[in-house]
Amino acid sequence: MKARVLITPKKGIADPQGTAIEQALHALGFTGARGVRMGKCIELELPDGDPNSARDALARMSEQLLANTNIEQYTCMILDEDV
Amino acid sequence: MKARVLITPKKGIADPQGTAIEQALHALGFTGARGVRMGKCIELELPDGDPNSARDALARMSEQLLANTNIEQYTCMILDEDV
Repeated sequence: MKARVLITPKKGIADPQGTAIEQALHALGFTGARGVRMGKCIELELPDGDPNSARDALARMSEQLLANTNIEQYTCMILDEDV
Repeated sequence: MKARVLITPKKGIADPQGTAIEQALHALGFTGARGVRMGKCIELELPDGDPNSARDALARMSEQLLANTNIEQYTCMILDEDV
């Protein structure tokens, strides 16, 4: 099954990349864009099976490797076949 | 409204970061993880209004700034209030 982990800076943590993107969007005329936050998106394939145990595995991967949980939060998703 | 743009390398484009993550996951015992792809997740606030025109604006932001459409694909999403 296809899975995705999104990793974004926690609320209150400075995000200079997000700030730079926001300024660039304003310069391009997208003046309505606010609160831009820049994070990571990791997509992977897991063996087919129980979605709940897959979600547990994703959380353990995030804690042990993918996210710096001091400053980042993560969201784990199981995707449908062709998403 | 809250919106999200996911930017991932196109199929066939080399992704050395994804490969490194996959090897690290295997070393940690997550041997079932395959096809890891590393991308970006950009979250932002847009003025409330028509979700379709917001989606159009996100696509234009992606084309003009966020994604390198030669090697990256993007997915635009409008999120519910508290997601």
